Amino acid sequence: MKTKNISLLALFLLSVVFTILSNKASAQEKNQMVRLAKIVIDSTQLENYKALLKEEIETSVRVEPGVITLYAVSEKNNPAHITILEIYADTSAYKAHLQAPHFIKYKTGTKDMVKSLELAEADPLVPGMKIK
Amino acid sequence: MKTKNISLLALFLLSVVFTILSNKASAQEKNQMVRLAKIVIDSTQLENYKALLKEEIETSVRVEPGVITLYAVSEKNNPAHITILEIYADTSAYKAHLQAPHFIKYKTGTKDMVKSLELAEADPLVPGMKIK
Repeated sequence: MKTKNISLLALFLLSVVFTILSNKASAQEKNQMVRLAKIVIDSTQLENYKALLKEEIETSVRVEPGVITLYAVSEKNNPAHITILEIYADTSAYKAHLQAPHFIKYKTGTKDMVKSLELAEADPLVPGMKIK
Repeated sequence: MKTKNISLLALFLLSVVFTILSNKASAQEKNQMVRLAKIVIDSTQLENYKALLKEEIETSVRVEPGVITLYAVSEKNNPAHITILEIYADTSAYKAHLQAPHFIKYKTGTKDMVKSLELAEADPLVPGMKIK
């Protein structure tokens, strides 16, 4: 009887911890800012642009905890068409990112390479989706 | 002297293991198939479409190890514009996905909801990028 009670208590405590952790995770995702950046680059400057973007992305993800991902792709049939899936923890993480020296370096360094830039705010269909 | 040799041997073995693991990781990423699916939905059927896509994505990521991610977003200013960042481990994982019952269910269930579909094969700028 005593063992059964201890088991039930353990199960109850586990479920409490699990609920707290899941709520914490979904609350974190609720505040996330998700965006698609659709960028067209001057194709004569594409390699320079990509090097600057790569450096900016790697630094941002490494040093800014609020930068959840910056997944950038170049289309095989239109390599000068770049799309970035941007996820920030919340709007303040995004604002901090705009002030980061590595972002300012990228932004000023690439301003004459960018032919067009569209920023589309987005809602994720499955918040909390990861890359395995 | 003996302790020093053992330490050097341990260091060497660690570096071998590290090299093998990193090469394995980068080899895995080299074979990945990355794509943007750009889909426009009949807006009168958007909620039904999103429910079917959500179910398909959650099942694919859960049961197919070769589906690395399916990150789908709906644009806030054009909710019927859906973009999916699709990452598969390799082309055979992608082919297997096309045969999966949950994919076939989604594809047949949504065929009259999709106004246009563009599949853009893409190169990731930073292979191995994750979502924190």
